[in-house]
This record gives sequence, C-alpha cells and structure tokens, in this order.
Amino acid sequence: MNKKMVFRTIGRLLQITAVLLIVPVIVALIYGEIKQAFAFGVTALGSLLMGVIISCFTKTKNKVIYARDGFAITALAWIGMALVGAIPFVLSGDIPSYIDAFFETVSGFTTTGASILENVEALSHSALFWRSFTHWIGGMGVLVFIMAIIPNFTDRSIHIMRAEMPGPIVGKLVPRVKDTAKILYLIYIVLTVVEAVLLLCGGMSIFDSLVHTFGTAGTGGFGIRNDSIASYSPYCQWVITIFMLIFGINFNLFYLILMKKFTTAIKSGELWTYIIIVVASTGFITANILSLANNFSDAVRDSAFQVSSFITTTGYATTDFNAWPDFSKAILLILMFIGGCAGSTAGGIKVARVVMLFKNIRREVKKLIHKRSVNAVHFEGKSVDEATFSGVNTYLAIYIICILAVFLLVSFDSFGFETNFTATVSCVNNIGPFFGGMSSFAEYSSFSKIIFSFAMLFGRLEIFPMIIMLSPRTWVKK
Amino acid sequence: MNKKMVFRTIGRLLQITAVLLIVPVIVALIYGEIKQAFAFGVTALGSLLMGVIISCFTKTKNKVIYARDGFAITALAWIGMALVGAIPFVLSGDIPSYIDAFFETVSGFTTTGASILENVEALSHSALFWRSFTHWIGGMGVLVFIMAIIPNFTDRSIHIMRAEMPGPIVGKLVPRVKDTAKILYLIYIVLTVVEAVLLLCGGMSIFDSLVHTFGTAGTGGFGIRNDSIASYSPYCQWVITIFMLIFGINFNLFYLILMKKFTTAIKSGELWTYIIIVVASTGFITANILSLANNFSDAVRDSAFQVSSFITTTGYATTDFNAWPDFSKAILLILMFIGGCAGSTAGGIKVARVVMLFKNIRREVKKLIHKRSVNAVHFEGKSVDEATFSGVNTYLAIYIICILAVFLLVSFDSFGFETNFTATVSCVNNIGPFFGGMSSFAEYSSFSKIIFSFAMLFGRLEIFPMIIMLSPRTWVKK
Repeated sequence: MNKKMVFRTIGRLLQITAVLLIVPVIVALIYGEIKQAFAFGVTALGSLLMGVIISCFTKTKNKVIYARDGFAITALAWIGMALVGAIPFVLSGDIPSYIDAFFETVSGFTTTGASILENVEALSHSALFWRSFTHWIGGMGVLVFIMAIIPNFTDRSIHIMRAEMPGPIVGKLVPRVKDTAKILYLIYIVLTVVEAVLLLCGGMSIFDSLVHTFGTAGTGGFGIRNDSIASYSPYCQWVITIFMLIFGINFNLFYLILMKKFTTAIKSGELWTYIIIVVASTGFITANILSLANNFSDAVRDSAFQVSSFITTTGYATTDFNAWPDFSKAILLILMFIGGCAGSTAGGIKVARVVMLFKNIRREVKKLIHKRSVNAVHFEGKSVDEATFSGVNTYLAIYIICILAVFLLVSFDSFGFETNFTATVSCVNNIGPFFGGMSSFAEYSSFSKIIFSFAMLFGRLEIFPMIIMLSPRTWVKK
Repeated sequence: MNKKMVFRTIGRLLQITAVLLIVPVIVALIYGEIKQAFAFGVTALGSLLMGVIISCFTKTKNKVIYARDGFAITALAWIGMALVGAIPFVLSGDIPSYIDAFFETVSGFTTTGASILENVEALSHSALFWRSFTHWIGGMGVLVFIMAIIPNFTDRSIHIMRAEMPGPIVGKLVPRVKDTAKILYLIYIVLTVVEAVLLLCGGMSIFDSLVHTFGTAGTGGFGIRNDSIASYSPYCQWVITIFMLIFGINFNLFYLILMKKFTTAIKSGELWTYIIIVVASTGFITANILSLANNFSDAVRDSAFQVSSFITTTGYATTDFNAWPDFSKAILLILMFIGGCAGSTAGGIKVARVVMLFKNIRREVKKLIHKRSVNAVHFEGKSVDEATFSGVNTYLAIYIICILAVFLLVSFDSFGFETNFTATVSCVNNIGPFFGGMSSFAEYSSFSKIIFSFAMLFGRLEIFPMIIMLSPRTWVKK
C-alpha cells in the first residue's frame, strides 16, 4: 500500500473540510450567532492547519493509488470528516456531548438523518445549516468532489470512486475519472438549484428551502422542525416527494438524457423496477390507511411521501407512520431494505442488486432442474458475469451479518425488539427514523451511539471499505 | 417430467401414512379413547384406499426420477401427508377447525412445533401422541424412510434425498442411496431409544418420555404441558438439552464414528463451529440473566436449555425467555437464523452454510484487493467449488426474500412488529416459539395460518422443492 498517498489525500480532505466550514461561518454571521461563527471558524482554521502539516510530511513521487488504498482512503476520509465536523457543535454548545455530536455528524455525512436531538428547534441557524449541508456533501461523495476539483489525480483513482459510489457496478461515464466526477457534480448542483427554487415558489423562506433541498438531494432527512415536513404546505410536500424520487435515480440516466440518449435511459430495467415498487407500495398503503386519513387526497399524499422517503432512505415524514397499521409498516420496512437505485445518493441494498438477486435465483432454480443448462442473464442491456453475481450475493451476506451484529450489540440497551431492530436497519440503510415510538436516538447509551455511527458508515460506504480499513493486513508492509 | 412416477410415489406415501396412523390408533385403544381410535382408524383406511387407487392408475415401465421430479415429489408428499394427517384431529374433535389442524400437522411434520393450541393439556392422549409422532417422522424425512424400506427405487432417487435432506451438500454415505437411507434411519432409531430410556430413568412416564423423545429427535418441540419442559426435573432438562444438541449434529458424523473413523469425525469444522456457538451463547446469556435467576446453576441450565432449543430449532422451553433482557433475546434470535448442522434434523440456515458464507466473504474481500488472486477455499477437508458457493449465496437470498414476503403477508394481523416478525422467523426456521408475549398462533387469522403453514414447508424443504413444485413450467409437457 502507498501509505504516503493515502495520508496525502486525507491531508487534502482536511483542507477541503476547512473550506466547507466557511459556509456555516457565513450563515452564523448573517444570523448574528457570534459563538457559532467562532466555533465554525476555529474548527476551519484547525482543520486547514492539520491538512497543511500532513501534506508537508507526505510528499511522494509515487502517485499510484492501489485498490486497497482506495478503500482505506475512503473509510479514513469519512471518519476524519465526521471527527472534525462534529467539533463546532460542541464548541458552540449546540450539542454539548462530543459523542452525540459525532453521531449527528456521521448521520449527516452518511445522509442517514438519524438524530440524537429531542428538540431540533432549539438549535442555532448555523448549526441547523451545517447539519443539512453535511447531507449535501455526503450525498454525492466528498472524495468524488475532491477528484473533480483537484488536479493531478491519476486515473487509478477510479478505485476511490468505486469505493465511495453506491451500487454493484461503477462505470466511468467518460474515459477520464476526473471528468466523470465533474459531470456527476454538475447534475447534482443543477437538480439542487431547481428544487430550492421550486420550494421558494411554494412560500418557504430561503433558509428553509436550502436546508430541505440539502436534505432531499443527499437523501438525508435532517429537518428543522420537530414534526419534520408535516407543517409545510401540500405543494411543498409534493415537491419534496418528487425530488426525493429523482435523487433516488441512477445519475448515469441523467447523463444519458443530457447526451440525448433518451431511448437508452428509458430502457433501464432498474428505473422501471424502482417506479413499479414506488407506485405499488403507494397504492397498497393508501388502501390500508384510507380509513385513518381525512380524505383520499391526504391518504395518497401521505403514502407517496412516506414511500418515497423510505425507499430513497431520506427519512423525512409528514405523518406519524408509527401509528399506521402493521401491514403499511411492513411495506415501509421492506422499502428500507431495498433502497434507491445504484449510482444515486440513496442508501439500502439498491434496486439493481435486488433485481440481480432475483435474476440469480431464477438462474439457480433452472440449474437445479437442468444440470447442464447455460443461462446468460442480461441486465441493462449487458450480460451479467459470474463475478458480478458473486459480488451481489456476497454483499447481501455481509449486509445481513452486519445488521445482526449491530442489532446484537445495541441490544444492551433494553428498548425492546421493535425499537432496537428497526433502529439498526435504519442506520445500516442510512434512513434515520425507526419504529417503536422513540423520537430520537438520544436515550441510547454512548456505546450504542458509537456502534450506530459505525453502522451508518458501513451502510454508506457499502461495507467493504470499512472492512478493508479495519483489517490489520492492509497496514502491514509486504 | 415423469408424472406417472411422481404420482406413483405419492400413492405409496399415502399407503405408508396409513400404516403410520395405526400407531395412534393403538395409543387411543390403550387409553380407551374410542372416538380418537375411530378418527385415526377411518383416516388410515381412507389413506390406504386412496394410495392403492393412485398406485393402480400409475403403473409405468419408466422408473426414472428426474431432478425436477424429485423436487416435485418431495413438495407434494409433504403437503399430502399434512392434509391427511390433519383429518383425525378434526374427526376426533381435538382440533375442530380443519385449517387449525392443518397448521398443527404441518408444524408437526416440519418439526416446527408452532401450535394453535391455547391449552395443550386438554388434548386426548392419542392426539398428543400423533402430534409428537409427526415430529419424529418429519425429522429424518419421510421419503428417506420410503427409500429405505421399499424395493425397486433406482439410484436416480438421490434426487429425492437431495430435496428432502437439509444442508448445502448431500452426499451418499455408501454407494447405494437405499443403504444410505437405511443407515441414517438406524442411527436415528438408536439415538431415539437411548434418549427415551434415559428419560424413563429420570422418572418420566412411558408416555411422557416417548412424546418428548419424539419432539427432541425431530427437533420439533411439541410438548404436552402448557409450561413445556419447565415442570420436569433438572435431570430430565439436562437429558433433553444434550439430546437436542446431539440431534442437531450432522448424522454423517455418527456414521463416521460407527465406521471407527474418529479422527475424520472430530476434525469437522462445522461441528466445532456449532460447539463454539453453543458454548459462547450459553456463556453470554448466563452472564446476562444471572441477576434474574435463583442461583448460578439455574441460570446455566436455563441458558443451556434455551440455547440448545433455539439453535437446533426445537422450541422447547424451561423458562419464560420472553422476560429475558433484550441482549439475551437478540442472541436467541440470531441462533434461530443459524440453526443446526447440515444433515441433522434441525432447521435454520445451517451452520455449514453460515461457515461458507463467512469463508466466501473473506475470499471476496481478498479479490477486491488483489484482482488476480486465486484463493482455493477448503471446508471439511475438501476444496469448495464455485457452484457450492453460488448455491449457498442464492439460498441466503431466497431465504431472506421468503422471510420478508411472509412477514408482509401476516402483517394484515396487527399483532405488532415483534410478534409478527419473530413468528415469521420462527416458522421459516422451523422453531415454533416466538417473542412478543402471545403464547400460540391461535389468534392469527386463517389466512395467516395458511401462509405460516407454507412458510414452515418452505423452511423444512429448504425452499427449492416448493418453488419448483409451484412453477407452472414443471407441469407443462415438453
């Protein structure tokens, strides 16, 4: 492994973090929050200093990033950003406990939206802004961002992109990794601006529209009101519903549309599966909750909103879905597992993987019947090779083991099966809310909060980077 | 597919069922239960008649059983046996509703032990006996039994054995399938007799020792007292603990011991993993419940009993584990998923598969780091081929999908997340008891009972036979 290059990248990342921390400083100054401005400013300076020092000590001519390095960089980068990003919350007094602040920041960057805050409305504007801004940064991936703006990243850095981008197959849209990263961020920014403008048109203030757009774009879910999105107008709820769904679509499709390859985009098997799941789930839940709702249009809006929020793993809410019948909650739980499309900002197993799991089952059943049958399986117009199937299957196995392990460890807190299990599923899939009646993660022990924080990182980075980083073999010299 | 041969085997099976039904008739006569004797007798006669008629109409010279046929025979045989086996409960009035009786019989044959009875002590002796006897029949597999005793089964019938025996790889102990089946049944009978004698020595009546031995041998779990095993002596509880664990071991190992190949038997990776899981779980739970128990020895006995009961998917209980802390319950839930060893009478994913899942994850992580590395993986002294890994991975995928689907469908009954989810996991893994406070499946709707019945069959037959039987393609002529 090229350790110098690994830490050099982390050094750069700290410098970038410093720049990002300037944004909440500006917000703090606008709202006259002096203490917060100081907290974010000091953290920014410290991060910059650390970054520069690390960069000075890690000069190297060997710029190659090996596969192993890509995974290690990604895991370390995300942990590092969360460690730094949590400091201002403590310094400003918005979140006094560092472990709580770390949980909240990990939840932000991983676009989970799980919170330890009992009363979010008590936070300062700049703290609320930073919380939501971390969603936006984490949504597309901060290393992808670095690749887009910093020169001299060789094409070997595809390993970083592969580690950070969600989904079973990561392709380059264009030959150069750098250009791919730029295109992805461009699409991301344009969609963000469009949503923010639409929310402004619906009567939201600039601040409200920005934080909610960040939360939607990253499929994060941090809100600024204790009832999440419930008290906003039906228009705003529908805008957020539609944009959650849009941000849950594979960004490659938007690129195809930009390139005017409409037919290729519209033929995506993953997209159609995603749409069918959303429509069917909304239909079933609407029918199931109709007797509880004021009228049909409310039932449809609430169903569509919650379905979109859960499948895209955003986590916003417009109603107390915990009071819904078990059947509707079961659908939401299954949506938590499925997640959005590969190559989107959403979490979960990803629709593409679910489709491949089903295709693989069909293939295996055929094999059982005809020993010698050879069945080429196609997905998105390409034939799927054994390695991809094997990868998807292994991902499911490790994912299930991860969920059971986290569930076991947090069960030292006796909040009951429903709470502990759905909180675990919620964190691993980067959703945020959970069933069982507790409104936040505040009551969990510090131990559980740390476990949940790692669960969120496991989920966002799709497990392998964390495993490779934690494996001692990665750090041993050959 | 060779339809005549499929139905011919079902015909034979009905004749065998008739013979098996004579046993409860005898029990009924001993206890003077005339109504029950009549019910079992009439059902036996009917089953015999049906079997003979089917056999007459399905004479064929083509005795070949194709892979597809093996799966279809297995699925149909188990459903057929349950349909017939449920009739006496209704005729005798012990379980008035046919759907309830069907659920109870499926639960028996699949060695689940889930019950719709609120008060099991109200049942007649012969009904209680039949319930437990179905565990014993279902434990080793009824088709394996047929293969052992009926002549002219060709060696192609390995397909049936493969479909009925649990585990990722089914090998023949000896060259002829028939002899393998005989050896397996011989071991099964010897172990059964030993346990029954040991329980008799502990002061149990002949009836009690028989039904509990049947429940242990099949890893079923039907008891005859409302508090399951709690009111029996510590000696009896320990005997059952040890025998649950013994029946959860791969029967191939007993054969190896019979052949005096002790070193090969003792080297089994699956056996050691199984032992380590049992010891570790017992240790953790003992520590966790120590403050609740009367003394250390009670805590160890209760832990060991419940751990053995859950990992072997038996389902007997000596204490109200639902009142245990969440951490202990989480361990039990994970044991439910793991299950016993392959080639035992236990349910669950099976220890062998779990080991292979972990080995595969390790292999895939290595592949991520070194693209071209070739890692031969060994298990039980043999190198594991891609097809086996693929099979194990696919099994996990289909198993998870099955659990989520069943959970969704039974959620129309709003008994809460904990109850519905653990009841589902319990049925799919053939365990029986579940968390959440409800003592039986009595309150579930008929719809849910049917879904649960199929879930138990899916679990016992390891899913594929049911899928192949339900696939229309199986029944269409080429």
